[in-house]
Amino acid sequence: MKQIIYSICILLFVANASFAQLQPLDGTAKYVFLFIGDGMGFAQVHSAEAYLDTLEQGTTEGPRDVRANKLAMTAELPFAGAISTYDYGVLITDSASAGTALACGKKTYSGVVSVDPQTKTIPYKTIAEVAKEHGMRVGIVTSVSIDHATPAVFYAHSASRNDYHGIGMQIAASGFDYFGGGGLLQQIKNGEDTIVAVQNAGYQVVTTHQDLAAVAPGQKVLAINSILDGSKALSYEIDRDVNDMSLADFTSEGIRLLDNPNGFFMMVEGGKIDWTCHANDGRTSIDDVLAFDNAVMKALDFAMLHPNETLVIVTADHETGGLTQGWAGTKYASAYEKMQGQTMSYLSFTDFVKGIAADSNKFWLDPNSNLVDDTDMLAAIENAFGLVYSQLTDFQKKQLEDGYDRSMKGSRIVSSEEDYLLYGGYDALTVTCTHILNNLAGLGWTSYSHTAIPVPVFSNDARFNGYYDNTMIPHKIADSIGLSGALD
Amino acid sequence: MKQIIYSICILLFVANASFAQLQPLDGTAKYVFLFIGDGMGFAQVHSAEAYLDTLEQGTTEGPRDVRANKLAMTAELPFAGAISTYDYGVLITDSASAGTALACGKKTYSGVVSVDPQTKTIPYKTIAEVAKEHGMRVGIVTSVSIDHATPAVFYAHSASRNDYHGIGMQIAASGFDYFGGGGLLQQIKNGEDTIVAVQNAGYQVVTTHQDLAAVAPGQKVLAINSILDGSKALSYEIDRDVNDMSLADFTSEGIRLLDNPNGFFMMVEGGKIDWTCHANDGRTSIDDVLAFDNAVMKALDFAMLHPNETLVIVTADHETGGLTQGWAGTKYASAYEKMQGQTMSYLSFTDFVKGIAADSNKFWLDPNSNLVDDTDMLAAIENAFGLVYSQLTDFQKKQLEDGYDRSMKGSRIVSSEEDYLLYGGYDALTVTCTHILNNLAGLGWTSYSHTAIPVPVFSNDARFNGYYDNTMIPHKIADSIGLSGALD
Repeated sequence: MKQIIYSICILLFVANASFAQLQPLDGTAKYVFLFIGDGMGFAQVHSAEAYLDTLEQGTTEGPRDVRANKLAMTAELPFAGAISTYDYGVLITDSASAGTALACGKKTYSGVVSVDPQTKTIPYKTIAEVAKEHGMRVGIVTSVSIDHATPAVFYAHSASRNDYHGIGMQIAASGFDYFGGGGLLQQIKNGEDTIVAVQNAGYQVVTTHQDLAAVAPGQKVLAINSILDGSKALSYEIDRDVNDMSLADFTSEGIRLLDNPNGFFMMVEGGKIDWTCHANDGRTSIDDVLAFDNAVMKALDFAMLHPNETLVIVTADHETGGLTQGWAGTKYASAYEKMQGQTMSYLSFTDFVKGIAADSNKFWLDPNSNLVDDTDMLAAIENAFGLVYSQLTDFQKKQLEDGYDRSMKGSRIVSSEEDYLLYGGYDALTVTCTHILNNLAGLGWTSYSHTAIPVPVFSNDARFNGYYDNTMIPHKIADSIGLSGALD
Repeated sequence: MKQIIYSICILLFVANASFAQLQPLDGTAKYVFLFIGDGMGFAQVHSAEAYLDTLEQGTTEGPRDVRANKLAMTAELPFAGAISTYDYGVLITDSASAGTALACGKKTYSGVVSVDPQTKTIPYKTIAEVAKEHGMRVGIVTSVSIDHATPAVFYAHSASRNDYHGIGMQIAASGFDYFGGGGLLQQIKNGEDTIVAVQNAGYQVVTTHQDLAAVAPGQKVLAINSILDGSKALSYEIDRDVNDMSLADFTSEGIRLLDNPNGFFMMVEGGKIDWTCHANDGRTSIDDVLAFDNAVMKALDFAMLHPNETLVIVTADHETGGLTQGWAGTKYASAYEKMQGQTMSYLSFTDFVKGIAADSNKFWLDPNSNLVDDTDMLAAIENAFGLVYSQLTDFQKKQLEDGYDRSMKGSRIVSSEEDYLLYGGYDALTVTCTHILNNLAGLGWTSYSHTAIPVPVFSNDARFNGYYDNTMIPHKIADSIGLSGALD
């Protein structure tokens, strides 16, 4: 039922999308939106476009002149380009060094948050700090924890992204006006409570949409969603309760709170596109790209009302998963409609599998058990992914059996190279399901990590056109707001 | 030795690259270059960039601020964008329909050459035909056969790309001024000789650089390279004899022949980027991208001399292979230096393997033989790919043994789904070698076919910026040469 409602929402979204292209920015930007789709490469963007088209048409294929519906980010922003993402140490960046590049315009090592690579002690000024000093209000929004690498690089400086408490404590000192989205991974350390420190610095801390909506503009606020996953992040879009706050909601509230005569800078991260792509779950990636695009629409709506004063940039820190829109087994065929049957994220299904594995009354404890006799699990797989066991090829059935054995009988060989290639660090049965489903649809994955492929940039400012390095992004923002050289 | 010379050439190329960015085109274009890297996605472009950097620095990784050297196409052309590539029937296009979109601005079915999708009889006017009617000279250059899909869509109209004879015969009627590169796949059919027809239409037919260089501008010419592979294509760059004509040579000669007061249109295809990516051979792809980029440099040199009159566009018809710059087994590490040891293309190595397999005196005929006892083959693998058997992991050794058995003992199961995923339609030992080598370097592949991921566009004309559909390309060219609406 939830799935049906979701599909209807998507269709309404498609039907309502007007896609009038924003006028190119002609003037100095007063309002700045920087959207970062964590892990969002061209494949993540275009697979979401093709999925929208599939929902509308019923199938990915079949004769027609126009096939891929555009997202707001690709349709309404007239300029586009691509950026390289390597960091100071390696070709394949992590989110901390890529974020530092996007926030400070400088390269550093993986894992390092807006400080230099050599000593890891010299802070690099961030474009958000520049904006704040310039009198603009500043907001930081993310779907993951607010102390995670991508939000952190804009307000914190640390030798290690893993110093969650140290990073979180820098919220208080930042003076930024709005933090919204996920929670804190290490709220208390050595008796020091981040929330108390933030409150002492004059911030109001809220956890519900109602309370957030009641905050008056000008009041500094830390808004932590009441529903969070085990990583203090918002739910995946595919799992999100319809009454739960979305990334778009946090963006809307941010606009309301930050709007003022001196302008604002707001960074909005779609942080879980990355996480689902690490897990090679394509449908969950698509839904999170669409949720991210819904947040972009809020900025575009604002930009329509403030032409020639609003800069919108949508980009990514890196691609994740080595997602491609083609798979050896399906050759030239695509069938994204097969992903419509998925009803939950890989994470929710893994929770289910772990629950079964912890239940000693379940069939799987029999060493002679196998997937085909486990009707509960076959039904669960069909319910979660729309995969019908009897319709799979012998090879796919074998893959599923192998994944089942590894998940349910403890036969996983952690040190095996082949096992890692097949399952990464994920539940073997779950990742086998997403692999089979994604492959049937025509999507391929090559990694459980990030990749070095250039990532897209979309904007209403011609400055952001071209093929260049990620370090150029904040310098271009500085140019656009009339503060050229502020990060030099 | 040849490898050393090649590496020196590459280094000289890197050292000499000046990379002054071309001035944006400001005026009506008189000279048009359309470069199409067949199968060249962002991963193909950026892996070539990272490989150049690796040659210069010795390793892909290690601390430094600037990591990926730019190619001429990415460094000298100020505008960039990305295009979707779906065709009238499917999300994953073939080269005929993608070429029709790039040449005519209209969608058609896969396999169809510049005619409508419904009846496959109504010719679509091509931008090359528009240029010719406008009094410009027209040249078509390719590294594959001149009757292949991508060159064909500019001068021919056919219901099927496989009608090589019918397509080749349309060279004579085209009136185009210069055809250069590969040969004809079906020169004679029913007693009708394409070369005779072309000569009767007033074309000079040449096969050597010397003879081509002697042709006077104004003389129509069909230049077919004397050294061709079994598919009537130029050699892969990695296999090319230093005295053999390169794609850049054919481009230079084209500029000389086409340059005239009424301007020209030249399409140059790097056609074998696609073929090597079908075979999942990354190093051969990189070398062919570099050869393609060398051809682009010839156009950029011309554009420097004719600013505000020269339009240069570099794009692709689609991506091939699902290449990504990350692989599960290497996680965040990249080591493109491992590809330096490759000395020949997958195709040359496959020829070698087939030669061994055809020699009944060879060890492999013993059913108990295995790769580790076949010292000739181990030496050949090391010579061709730089892979040292003793340095491989147990899993990689097993992969190589499996590939060896399938190639040398006839144990390949053609109908097996697993076998197809592992080897596609290629020699099992060869593709296992390129997979292992590419994966060790940090490159992944998902397909032996094309993919639907958007492909890059680079240009000196702001019109080509943005994120749009491939059908827009020839309309934008028409706009740029002052003939807006010529393809409507």
